[in-house]
Amino acid sequence: MMSVLGICSEVFSEHSNHFRFVHWASEFSIMHLVVIGGSDAGIAAALRAREIDPNTMVTVLLADGFPNYSICGLPFFLSREVSDPAALAHRTREELESTGIELLINTTAKAIGQTDKTVVVVGHRGHQRSIQYDRLIIATGARPTDPGIIGHTLPGVFYLHTMEDSLAIDRFVAETKARRAFIVGGGYIGLEMADALTLRGIEVTLASKTESVLPSVDPELGRSVEEELRRHGVIVHTQTTVRSISPSGSTLNVMDAKNRHHTTDMVVLATGVRPSSELARSAGIQPGHAGAIRVNRRMETNITDIFAAGDCVETWHRLLARSVYRPLGTTAHKQGRIAGENAVGGNCEFAGTLGTQVVKVFELAIARTGLSEVEANHDGWQAATVKSTMWDHKVYYPGAMPMHICVVGDRSTGQLLGAQMIGYWKSEVAKRIDIIATALFHGMTVDGVNDLDLSYTPPLSSPWDPVQIAAQAWLHQYGNQPASADSEART
Amino acid sequence: MMSVLGICSEVFSEHSNHFRFVHWASEFSIMHLVVIGGSDAGIAAALRAREIDPNTMVTVLLADGFPNYSICGLPFFLSREVSDPAALAHRTREELESTGIELLINTTAKAIGQTDKTVVVVGHRGHQRSIQYDRLIIATGARPTDPGIIGHTLPGVFYLHTMEDSLAIDRFVAETKARRAFIVGGGYIGLEMADALTLRGIEVTLASKTESVLPSVDPELGRSVEEELRRHGVIVHTQTTVRSISPSGSTLNVMDAKNRHHTTDMVVLATGVRPSSELARSAGIQPGHAGAIRVNRRMETNITDIFAAGDCVETWHRLLARSVYRPLGTTAHKQGRIAGENAVGGNCEFAGTLGTQVVKVFELAIARTGLSEVEANHDGWQAATVKSTMWDHKVYYPGAMPMHICVVGDRSTGQLLGAQMIGYWKSEVAKRIDIIATALFHGMTVDGVNDLDLSYTPPLSSPWDPVQIAAQAWLHQYGNQPASADSEART
Repeated sequence: MMSVLGICSEVFSEHSNHFRFVHWASEFSIMHLVVIGGSDAGIAAALRAREIDPNTMVTVLLADGFPNYSICGLPFFLSREVSDPAALAHRTREELESTGIELLINTTAKAIGQTDKTVVVVGHRGHQRSIQYDRLIIATGARPTDPGIIGHTLPGVFYLHTMEDSLAIDRFVAETKARRAFIVGGGYIGLEMADALTLRGIEVTLASKTESVLPSVDPELGRSVEEELRRHGVIVHTQTTVRSISPSGSTLNVMDAKNRHHTTDMVVLATGVRPSSELARSAGIQPGHAGAIRVNRRMETNITDIFAAGDCVETWHRLLARSVYRPLGTTAHKQGRIAGENAVGGNCEFAGTLGTQVVKVFELAIARTGLSEVEANHDGWQAATVKSTMWDHKVYYPGAMPMHICVVGDRSTGQLLGAQMIGYWKSEVAKRIDIIATALFHGMTVDGVNDLDLSYTPPLSSPWDPVQIAAQAWLHQYGNQPASADSEART
Repeated sequence: MMSVLGICSEVFSEHSNHFRFVHWASEFSIMHLVVIGGSDAGIAAALRAREIDPNTMVTVLLADGFPNYSICGLPFFLSREVSDPAALAHRTREELESTGIELLINTTAKAIGQTDKTVVVVGHRGHQRSIQYDRLIIATGARPTDPGIIGHTLPGVFYLHTMEDSLAIDRFVAETKARRAFIVGGGYIGLEMADALTLRGIEVTLASKTESVLPSVDPELGRSVEEELRRHGVIVHTQTTVRSISPSGSTLNVMDAKNRHHTTDMVVLATGVRPSSELARSAGIQPGHAGAIRVNRRMETNITDIFAAGDCVETWHRLLARSVYRPLGTTAHKQGRIAGENAVGGNCEFAGTLGTQVVKVFELAIARTGLSEVEANHDGWQAATVKSTMWDHKVYYPGAMPMHICVVGDRSTGQLLGAQMIGYWKSEVAKRIDIIATALFHGMTVDGVNDLDLSYTPPLSSPWDPVQIAAQAWLHQYGNQPASADSEART
């Protein structure tokens, strides 16, 4: 707990916005929770702390001017499916402040003093000051990896990670009337950008260094995504590493490792992210997997009263039973909520990620949860994958679309380990992967999936849901007993 | 096991189709499994038995000429969304027979001799004979309840339970050019028929004796369904019991209990079903709940070597931990599979129903799983329901539609007991109820739903899926701690 005097002296000396909190603090000794970062994890933590203990004073430090933005929404602004970027905010600044959170925008944390419990910050006018905390939550997120490409800082070369990145791309397209874009990276962001810029009327070339795009799913599914990209005019190069970007008149010249040249008007680098954990490290906070901040499942760092959450931390994997680096918005929200609750005296644990993800690429949705065969075998399972193809609903009802489901299970125990799905984006692929994610959460066997009482009506499913038909196909190959042929939705 | 001689004598004396099985049986002593009923449960059982033990001889007795038809698809044939009724078959007769199943169509089982292990059957030419079995599976299904309405056998008054019913309605509409239909019953079939006949261009009036239509969900949701019906021109009368139907020239006169008269061209009675268990009862098989055949979770009746499955049996409810009568196609498939497996020496148990259901009514999907508050409190829980309204995906992405989710939980333990959902039929309502069904299967708490790692992309969900936002809303009212306000998908 900090004394009110402590707040006062800091407030009056540094930041007038702080003033109203003095009244609010009254003469009581109150806890001050400082949150570094105002994106998913930071805001989730702040909101949860205020809810659990409305007497806690919560200050959120935000490096830019866009609190609580949906980073996942940026491609849809660039595609013009969303016309107003302000719509991408989960909440407005006013909504956040109405919950009693103090929001310090354009305020960057520069150092953490763990012994005197202070955060040194620099405001938007360059003023430096220090803020005292009783509890601290670090939610500094991630930032794009340096792809090691010569010329990656040239004008016309962009990342897509912040609202400012997004606005910069938008301005560039509008001002230069860019007609061609070259995207480096075939992961989620690269694919969403290929979709978005194509919708925007730009000719897109996409280069992925992996065997197939979307390396988080098996190559066979990745190749289906490539087909979808090509069907919409995207030029796709796989197993292609970009070496350099150089200016060539008003265009850019992209050279790959095979010495092929690609002329383009702009480049988007989408080669992944790494944790923004330098601030934490310089404060003596222990790093963990992939340089992310090490936390336990209560989201505590190794330093008393300092928690961390979101894309800057390592994440407990529920199946692997160890920490990995798997930055995801959904995980950031959950971890933030837990850090916020525990920071004000709660006692909850992060249940673990399963790496559940879905992405929409043009008309397709591609989803995964749990482990791939390769990932599982790497950790000692005897995993096998079976791919099934079936209709999303009874084929006699109009509009049936094919979907593909890969089920991964352990051959020796029958344990369900993961699934991957690809189908029409309105085929309930996203929530079908969630059925598997919920089954995985509880350690079900592949056979157990058949016991689930799932909903059915001919326009929306079949008496055995596609996830059950896929489980039966796996059992047919790897179960101890043959699987049921009662999978009438196949035909 | 029966001797080959036993088969031979029976075959040659009674039924030439049987002949080929004699060759197949060769000189081995083989098991003969007889299945009474060729709909979902019967066919699932027959297929599973053949798969588990390809040496078993399987004979399926089918009272009509339509094996393995999708009863749930009948409304879509009447609506003309499905043009060819043959498309409603899960499999053709040829496909079934290619698995080695002997299919005796237009063959009605008249008596079961449990001591001599025979079934007396009457074929389509009225020939009576008896078939010996080693194991018997009764899958005689259900049939419509007698609604106790005077005039219910008049021409122009129909049930919708079999393919023959469906063809009869279709012929009647085509021949009489019926313009008006009166539907009695506001359950799943009544609603689907209201939708189907409206699409067919018929003016529909629907009468439900309950407070609101679709009594399997809470009245508030039922009223939303009524709005959808009215929006499409259906006249809806709730709390209305029909007393009599009488001919009036070329039309029918429907009189309700309030002495109101309704003139119509045809009447569809959709007032529920009851188990077809008379055959079993007359063989000394013990009845259970609601007159259905009593079975254990291995689908065994009280008589050795006689199993039963599907709409003719009582069903183990996973939450109530007792048997109920809850006839559903999904359950019939599961129970049939289990009966088939156990009949040939397997050892599996039915995991229990959660009453998971979904129905599409015009543009809406309405789904439920688990218990309603009333049902739960009747069985001793301290249940409470919280209704939430949210968008099906991030509202900034085009096409967001509102959905409503009712979460039912136990106030004293926090146990999740059930959920009901209503939303646009393409809003993944069906598979979202399945997330809850999978959570219920594992006895999760409402709070636990927040730990699930569910998929997210802005066009398809929000960082907390609607089911999690709904769980948080329940916790906010009834949890020990306030729920998170981090439910940005609400706005």
